[in-house]
Amino acid sequence: MDGAQMTQHELVIVPEGMIADMLTRKSAFDAVENVFAAMAAGDAYNFPVVREAIGHEDALYGFKGGFDRAGGVLGLKAGGYWPHNLERRGLINHQSTVFLFDPDSGRVKAMVGGNLLTALRTAAASSVSIRHLARKDARVLGMIGAGHQATFQLRAALETHGFEKVIGWNYHPEMLSNLASVAEEMDVPFEAVDLPDMIRADAIITITSSFAPTLLAEHVSPGTHIACMGTDTTGKQEVSADLLAGATVFADEVAQSVSIGEAQHAIKDGLLADTDIHQLGSVINSAHPGRISDEQITVFDGTGVGLQDLAVAASIVDAAVSSGQATVVPI
Amino acid sequence: MDGAQMTQHELVIVPEGMIADMLTRKSAFDAVENVFAAMAAGDAYNFPVVREAIGHEDALYGFKGGFDRAGGVLGLKAGGYWPHNLERRGLINHQSTVFLFDPDSGRVKAMVGGNLLTALRTAAASSVSIRHLARKDARVLGMIGAGHQATFQLRAALETHGFEKVIGWNYHPEMLSNLASVAEEMDVPFEAVDLPDMIRADAIITITSSFAPTLLAEHVSPGTHIACMGTDTTGKQEVSADLLAGATVFADEVAQSVSIGEAQHAIKDGLLADTDIHQLGSVINSAHPGRISDEQITVFDGTGVGLQDLAVAASIVDAAVSSGQATVVPI
Repeated sequence: MDGAQMTQHELVIVPEGMIADMLTRKSAFDAVENVFAAMAAGDAYNFPVVREAIGHEDALYGFKGGFDRAGGVLGLKAGGYWPHNLERRGLINHQSTVFLFDPDSGRVKAMVGGNLLTALRTAAASSVSIRHLARKDARVLGMIGAGHQATFQLRAALETHGFEKVIGWNYHPEMLSNLASVAEEMDVPFEAVDLPDMIRADAIITITSSFAPTLLAEHVSPGTHIACMGTDTTGKQEVSADLLAGATVFADEVAQSVSIGEAQHAIKDGLLADTDIHQLGSVINSAHPGRISDEQITVFDGTGVGLQDLAVAASIVDAAVSSGQATVVPI
Repeated sequence: MDGAQMTQHELVIVPEGMIADMLTRKSAFDAVENVFAAMAAGDAYNFPVVREAIGHEDALYGFKGGFDRAGGVLGLKAGGYWPHNLERRGLINHQSTVFLFDPDSGRVKAMVGGNLLTALRTAAASSVSIRHLARKDARVLGMIGAGHQATFQLRAALETHGFEKVIGWNYHPEMLSNLASVAEEMDVPFEAVDLPDMIRADAIITITSSFAPTLLAEHVSPGTHIACMGTDTTGKQEVSADLLAGATVFADEVAQSVSIGEAQHAIKDGLLADTDIHQLGSVINSAHPGRISDEQITVFDGTGVGLQDLAVAASIVDAAVSSGQATVVPI
């Protein structure tokens, strides 16, 4: 054997159970904001996504990889959706793990539990869009969707911007108590409303698994920012195509927005071209002006990219190592 | 947080330095033979391959994943080729790591060093093809290529079949001492030859990084089995297209053989159709008769698939756990 093969190094492990202590919403926000900027600057890119229905347990499994040359972060998130986990084994249905590699040598260097991380990076993305695209005087936040992930989006949004009121709608109204609890915890009044009442919102987050438009143009006031966070698959849709066509549209990654994101429908209907969609990162970089009037409707199509996971995982590894709490295994 | 998120489980780690003790050529052979059979039976399949030139250190990086439902093996090999590793940091240039997941729950369950594993699974593939496609009375083994990987192919082939003589050719003849050493160690006579002398071989393994055909039809006797192991990229080529066209061609995976394997050239020239290429696994399964005459030339196009890596990694994990030598980390 080569002597070189025997060279030992170390693997840093941050297991799922430690993520809550290692990852603040602030650090998730910063990591996602930075990597969106790096993507727009051409310093970071996502690899083609692998996503397979494996024909076992009705699971979807795959890999989202990428490389951030600016941040020196290389790796992938592997995992997916096991729909019977909760019922059959008391585990959450979304299961994923992030692996980071040394971009200089190709050796694996860290493994990070990806479940809570995914929830927090998705919440960070809509918050980053609110920071950069919502009106500074936005006061009312509208929430469409009230499931588990919606609570993450809401908490992060309330921390990012001084909203004075939350209004919420969900297909199953009994779940709105999830949102009410978070709003109460953050000391912001909450009101359950009908869809047309979304006209009162200055910013709206949609976070559903819908296959038909829920939010229509008539439900939205001029000047509103909408973060569409639920659509990540062909066929899913949260807002009407004409609403998108009348808005200025931004995305985490334009190619993914067009193919599996909220924009897929407006694109298919010929109401929007891919050149009409801008990278949110270019606003962060000041290469694009972003919102230019108080009447403009802005949309962020958040499809979720591997680089978000990698960026947040890298910040978790840094926190775990510097606090001495990481598991370090010689390999 | 969900209580379910906190459920601990265990990660089994088999680091690179332990692979040599955990993986026998026999177990690599069995794992590769079984998974080829499972692929041909439709019980196992490879995912689309991700392979990226990342624009840093001239590295190629990517993921080869798959699922073997029959064996219950799910996961990927991640890594690639860092051409400056040896010179700049004393590490081997090929660097990879295998990650295995529980197909029932989607949770990561093992991490296995992938460097030596890759060399041994590639060697096992040509040996499996010799077992199932070479004439039982084959006596002379021809080797084309004499680099590091060629020594693995040769050692495995000599263990699999009772060859009485090894003849070898390499573009740089001074490297043939690599082959001579292995042959001596296995107590089989070795002779350095010119390419036309390959007419004396009953089985030939090609393992080069060539972009033009080396082995031509006139160099090969009727009844020979040829295992082409070097071509895994568009443009690479080891044997002439007309040699392939006159042979019965088998592959680990037909789709990959046609796109990036040795068969790409004969396909492009219209000398071969993808329906002319058979899965080696179907011979193992007895669904295809394989060799049917002593005059027939058979070719195995070994492109290398993720399922080989996963199958061998799973057998390593079993060996490491049952011998109590695995590193087990609660996560």
